[in-house]
Amino acid sequence: MSQHDAVLFANEAFYLAFSSQDLAAMTDLWASGVPVSCIHPGWPPLLGREEVLQSWEGIFSGDAPPAITCHGPRAHVYGDAATVLCFERIPESYLIATNIFVREGGLWKIVHHQAGPTNGGPVSEHGGELPMVN
Amino acid sequence: MSQHDAVLFANEAFYLAFSSQDLAAMTDLWASGVPVSCIHPGWPPLLGREEVLQSWEGIFSGDAPPAITCHGPRAHVYGDAATVLCFERIPESYLIATNIFVREGGLWKIVHHQAGPTNGGPVSEHGGELPMVN
Repeated sequence: MSQHDAVLFANEAFYLAFSSQDLAAMTDLWASGVPVSCIHPGWPPLLGREEVLQSWEGIFSGDAPPAITCHGPRAHVYGDAATVLCFERIPESYLIATNIFVREGGLWKIVHHQAGPTNGGPVSEHGGELPMVN
Repeated sequence: MSQHDAVLFANEAFYLAFSSQDLAAMTDLWASGVPVSCIHPGWPPLLGREEVLQSWEGIFSGDAPPAITCHGPRAHVYGDAATVLCFERIPESYLIATNIFVREGGLWKIVHHQAGPTNGGPVSEHGGELPMVN
């Protein structure tokens, strides 16, 4: 598997943990040896592993389960760091996300997530990597 | 200068180019040898150097000059890549931004920028690195 594909795989695992409210998986997906941060839509930034994981615990224990799917991921690998941009489909609209990964113990772990509003969305939903609109 | 400080310096240069509408400086600040991307608030993602720089040209030539300042930057260095999270003060409110840098020719160049809404803001504006609220 190329590093590009491995990063996309880690990104997919992130959204699987997110949508299935799997806190153990989410905990494992975040890097543990380097600083991490997270910006949920409209929130202030969360800094540090404890604060970030507490936010996921809160989201997963909320009344509304996160009905979210990832669309059109684009990965860019910069040595031992990588970014994935993707659309997040939430009920009736899309968000746009930046996810940042670093290699830790040979595995790509997430170190940062920011999601926010967008006026765009993936053009097509027919298989493979989805294009992004301009 | 530490890499941490060098990244903060590059981030400061980004906001100086932004607020002074300096397209030449902005062009120089973006990486040229690796993929770049940009998500302006509410926009779809822009992919590639040409598309990203065109967006800055459009923003700088608009009717409303970008009255924007950076507050509370936090840098994290991951080898040859780095992130800066910061608040962007715009008239009457704040945005929250993720900026990603990579080292290119010994200099930190920006490869990605995402800004979006936040309900937070820096707690204090009294010198130095500003804290972020939880």
